Amino acid sequence: MSLPSRRDGLPTSLSALHPFDPLTPFEIKLAVSILEKALPGAPLRYKRIDVLEPIKKDAAPYLDAERLGSPLPKKPARLLFSYFHRMDTGAFFKAVVNVEAMKPVYIKELPKHVQGPADIDELIDIEEVCMKHPAVLAEIEKMQLPEGYTVCNDPWIYGTDSDSESRRLVQCYMYIIEVDHAEANHYSLPCAFSPVFDQVTKELIRIDQLPTGADATTQSTQPWKPVKCVHYAHDLLDEPLRTDLKPYIVTQPDGPSFSVNGHEVSWQKWRFRVGFTNRDGLVLYNVTYDGRQTFYRLSMSEMTVPYGDPRAPYHRKQAFDAGDVGFGITANQLALGCDCLGHIKYFDGYRTDSKGNPVHLKNVICMHEQDNGIQHKHTNYRNNAATIVRNRQLVVQMICTVSNYEYILAWIFDQAGNIEHEIRATGILSTMPIDNESGAKVPWGTNVGPGVMAAYHQHLFSVRIDPAIDGHNNTLYYEDSVPMPVDKELNPFGMGYISKQTVLDKAGFADLSVEKNRVFKIRNDSKINDVSLKPVAYKLHSVPSQMLIMAEGSFARKRATFAEHAMWVTKYQDDELYAAGEFTNQSRVDTGLSEWASRNDDVENTDIVVWHTFGLTHNPRPEDFPVMPSERVSFMLKPDGFFTKNPALDVPASTQHFNKSSLVEDSCCGDKPKL
Amino acid sequence: MSLPSRRDGLPTSLSALHPFDPLTPFEIKLAVSILEKALPGAPLRYKRIDVLEPIKKDAAPYLDAERLGSPLPKKPARLLFSYFHRMDTGAFFKAVVNVEAMKPVYIKELPKHVQGPADIDELIDIEEVCMKHPAVLAEIEKMQLPEGYTVCNDPWIYGTDSDSESRRLVQCYMYIIEVDHAEANHYSLPCAFSPVFDQVTKELIRIDQLPTGADATTQSTQPWKPVKCVHYAHDLLDEPLRTDLKPYIVTQPDGPSFSVNGHEVSWQKWRFRVGFTNRDGLVLYNVTYDGRQTFYRLSMSEMTVPYGDPRAPYHRKQAFDAGDVGFGITANQLALGCDCLGHIKYFDGYRTDSKGNPVHLKNVICMHEQDNGIQHKHTNYRNNAATIVRNRQLVVQMICTVSNYEYILAWIFDQAGNIEHEIRATGILSTMPIDNESGAKVPWGTNVGPGVMAAYHQHLFSVRIDPAIDGHNNTLYYEDSVPMPVDKELNPFGMGYISKQTVLDKAGFADLSVEKNRVFKIRNDSKINDVSLKPVAYKLHSVPSQMLIMAEGSFARKRATFAEHAMWVTKYQDDELYAAGEFTNQSRVDTGLSEWASRNDDVENTDIVVWHTFGLTHNPRPEDFPVMPSERVSFMLKPDGFFTKNPALDVPASTQHFNKSSLVEDSCCGDKPKL
Repeated sequence: MSLPSRRDGLPTSLSALHPFDPLTPFEIKLAVSILEKALPGAPLRYKRIDVLEPIKKDAAPYLDAERLGSPLPKKPARLLFSYFHRMDTGAFFKAVVNVEAMKPVYIKELPKHVQGPADIDELIDIEEVCMKHPAVLAEIEKMQLPEGYTVCNDPWIYGTDSDSESRRLVQCYMYIIEVDHAEANHYSLPCAFSPVFDQVTKELIRIDQLPTGADATTQSTQPWKPVKCVHYAHDLLDEPLRTDLKPYIVTQPDGPSFSVNGHEVSWQKWRFRVGFTNRDGLVLYNVTYDGRQTFYRLSMSEMTVPYGDPRAPYHRKQAFDAGDVGFGITANQLALGCDCLGHIKYFDGYRTDSKGNPVHLKNVICMHEQDNGIQHKHTNYRNNAATIVRNRQLVVQMICTVSNYEYILAWIFDQAGNIEHEIRATGILSTMPIDNESGAKVPWGTNVGPGVMAAYHQHLFSVRIDPAIDGHNNTLYYEDSVPMPVDKELNPFGMGYISKQTVLDKAGFADLSVEKNRVFKIRNDSKINDVSLKPVAYKLHSVPSQMLIMAEGSFARKRATFAEHAMWVTKYQDDELYAAGEFTNQSRVDTGLSEWASRNDDVENTDIVVWHTFGLTHNPRPEDFPVMPSERVSFMLKPDGFFTKNPALDVPASTQHFNKSSLVEDSCCGDKPKL
Repeated sequence: MSLPSRRDGLPTSLSALHPFDPLTPFEIKLAVSILEKALPGAPLRYKRIDVLEPIKKDAAPYLDAERLGSPLPKKPARLLFSYFHRMDTGAFFKAVVNVEAMKPVYIKELPKHVQGPADIDELIDIEEVCMKHPAVLAEIEKMQLPEGYTVCNDPWIYGTDSDSESRRLVQCYMYIIEVDHAEANHYSLPCAFSPVFDQVTKELIRIDQLPTGADATTQSTQPWKPVKCVHYAHDLLDEPLRTDLKPYIVTQPDGPSFSVNGHEVSWQKWRFRVGFTNRDGLVLYNVTYDGRQTFYRLSMSEMTVPYGDPRAPYHRKQAFDAGDVGFGITANQLALGCDCLGHIKYFDGYRTDSKGNPVHLKNVICMHEQDNGIQHKHTNYRNNAATIVRNRQLVVQMICTVSNYEYILAWIFDQAGNIEHEIRATGILSTMPIDNESGAKVPWGTNVGPGVMAAYHQHLFSVRIDPAIDGHNNTLYYEDSVPMPVDKELNPFGMGYISKQTVLDKAGFADLSVEKNRVFKIRNDSKINDVSLKPVAYKLHSVPSQMLIMAEGSFARKRATFAEHAMWVTKYQDDELYAAGEFTNQSRVDTGLSEWASRNDDVENTDIVVWHTFGLTHNPRPEDFPVMPSERVSFMLKPDGFFTKNPALDVPASTQHFNKSSLVEDSCCGDKPKL
């Protein structure tokens, strides 16, 4: 449906917004004015302002009417939320406001120990406070750095090692900048001291010394032993660049196959809405195929990166990149031709700054087609007649820079009803100093350069799948492939095997089993497939991954219960979006899945949410430094008796006329092989 | 090195051949004349003629000299082998011949129960024998097919259910052809009877009745109950084709980045030789990166597809697609622009026919570049300066049609030292009749269309990795990621974890462990990485898969021991190439890995071969019919401390100037979303 819009594409009034449209700049201002009116005279510092997800009981009928072409009911109320501080009292609040009624719904003060996520302004601020502090400058002095060398710091979320810490702390990891270049790789030259600040009072709490040997021993800051910096920026490399890479150009002379209307995308029978939040970043809403509902909402709900170096201060090193900071606010503003290849459509986002001013996040989501080889092929060997169809895909993605690391999160649609979620980790390892002149090595890390070690760590993701397989009442179950018993009558040769089903009827968790080829599926018990005679379903091609390694009773487990099991199911409730809970920064326990899953709700044939935990145990190798070749992990949602046959049969044949490939002739006497 | 060649690129003399060059047509003729001379007057029927892999102790020094630019030693002797029959006595032989000396090395008669692989001529022949047999025609008559309907058959390797069968048998599965069209989908209309023939005498042994209900009950052939045929060919579809798919063109205006000299390929510091055999199909030899050895030989050594329907005759349904038939002889002859996109280089192959005439297998291997997103990226969040490099890959692949199924086997190289092996399964499920009018369902299969069921089955692949990590003496080991014990001194918070190594010092097998994130690695104990201080290595990103489900003591297990465990290691010996042994057709036991692995050889720091078993447990869904959306499974070989840093740093930056992407503007008021 067409929405009236300004030249820049943004709706000019609330009535023009779709319930699932992301935050707009004028709404940020509306929210600020509601709060200023509710708390007159109070000096407010805004940490976050964003859209509150629509209440499903109001949103679902609206989406159904859109999908069926029926008269539209009243839209759900447009609600925003905000995390903010009163700078006079230091109190921390959460408010929900109704920007149509121009009223707060509630404003509540949060307990003292609850820390909101990091915001951009405070990160910039504390980095500066650290760099100017006399005690820090004194430590830098002790390093006796060569002329022209400077120091910077990456402020790190402090983490948790206590149930009684209520200050908002930050651990500033210090690094040396070898040369005045915008991309000097400071991660190659970590310092051996690390200040801890109170982010509110800006006080220096203490200076931690980092261990530099093979054990937990530390010493006072020593003169820096010069080592070579391992650079990644092209003009800082020692070696020459490759000269034999020829261009690879993708063109779509008739344009791309997708069409976009505001935030609604249509492509090859798929239709969905692209959403954006400060926390989730990219969200997909109301995904339908050929007019049939498949998924109400898809997003990466949380990720945790605990480190395996047991020595202080690394024992607190456990990032929650969505909850502690936010994928949305760390999303790169993408550049045409650099990040994406082909015909690219971008979507923008907005956030607030600490003063309540909108900040434009341009090009944070990109979308384009790609070709992924053959979709299906069969040749009748008798006559060589063949049917070939290529696998055209649609990619919607964002790239997030969380200090040192980059995560590329992509949702990939194809023409056979499949949805893939692919995560690539790249960027730079988190590094620690090590005195490897003496040959020091540690069993929980890898030496990746001179004087620099990268500790073992895990990346554990929780993807949140809110299914609507032909409707909202679904059931999660799994099937194991198990041998039939040997039986003189039916199975005398021991060849038989069957699939054995188990329904998850209560909220909770389950584990994968490679040995049984366990496959989790989501079905609609009220809709039977005419061909298979079973309920229509989607299955997860999940990623068998090592779950959290850390010990029972550790804060790592208490804070990230989602990371203990591969599959979770809860009964849908509004506002249950984030696997480890709403506030992860310096959390002591998980206030998310562990609570919701223990409600023991009935989850059979009802509105459920499925959460899949998967990831990478990352024990670094030298090849991951100074910048990491992207490591890929992905899972897929695939129709399983959702259709009565292959839904991609009607994709036109792959032909030379359409594809225009070129033949490379033998080059035996022309191009000499290059050494 | 340039080889003199004819206009068609084929060397004209043996001296022009590289030791790893594939079979040439004139060598087929040389082999035939050697055998005719050795067995004068005997009427010979050739099943296979192919190159015998060079003896490593002779080939390795030759390759080293090439690599180092040293004077070349004497080439290894050029040996061919042949499987053939004497048509007068029926005896089956294997011969090895020296085509330089023009002499046999040996000719040995094989035991009566040993069956060679299927060859193309005999498959064509038996299909015809079956279609003309009076008893078969009588069964077809009983079906009372409508006017215009005909019948065809897929001759199937008979399989094994006995230790005493020594006839060469074939099970002909019968199907109905609904309409006179080159791609009528006969798999949609299976018949309920299946003749068994003796392939040598051409006698009909018996006619099996296939069960059509929910149990093993069979009946005599009944009048066929007409059901709709589910077609896949574009012009036989009921539904109209999609009209909204826009072209996606890949061009390389300066040509591709690879260069080819005969069978040697150079691309982005990789260099390797493309090989082709009738059995393996595509083989990669002597893979080096930047002049350093990585892998001596890589290939898919075997695959087995056992079916889980326990009822006769399906209890014998277990294909060994490499050993029973051969990837090479079933490889598609690829068509420009249909199978591959972009700038394509093809390689040809040759086989013999039953008379000893060379048959040209044109374009059986294709090679091209592709773009796979971002290789690495890092943005300095302080100033937004970013380094982005794209992931250009080189793909070398073949597509094999084995009756109903297609397998696309691709080796994919990238610029960061990674080698991926990706297998896609597509084509058509193997189908069985079922009387689903009565609502019949079976627990070991899925109804995929009217009257047609597809049984559960597994695809288990054995990839053979002959490593040469900086040299031939290597060690296979694995690392598990395990928690450190909680310890007041070192690990008070229970965060620590380490990697625990286990060396495989004796030939044998090992299993994967997802719970411990077990990673298998191959290292060179004599070469230490300057940065990590550990031996240089490559690791396998293996595919955790369900192993063979079939019962202990079943023929499935006895014949395919490789499919019981994920990892195998043996001490290198020439001619140990095929995981289930040389002759799999109607085999009773595995004569491959189970024998070689039980030799108990020392395999630490010596010339080893690693075999990785992985696969798919395939319980069909309706979406897999009538032709299957390609199912992908892949594993990777990744450098692990082989390099001292990321080897792709010197790949030039991804820029708009190079990539020429296009911006898609908002299309809110132009392109209406299509329903």
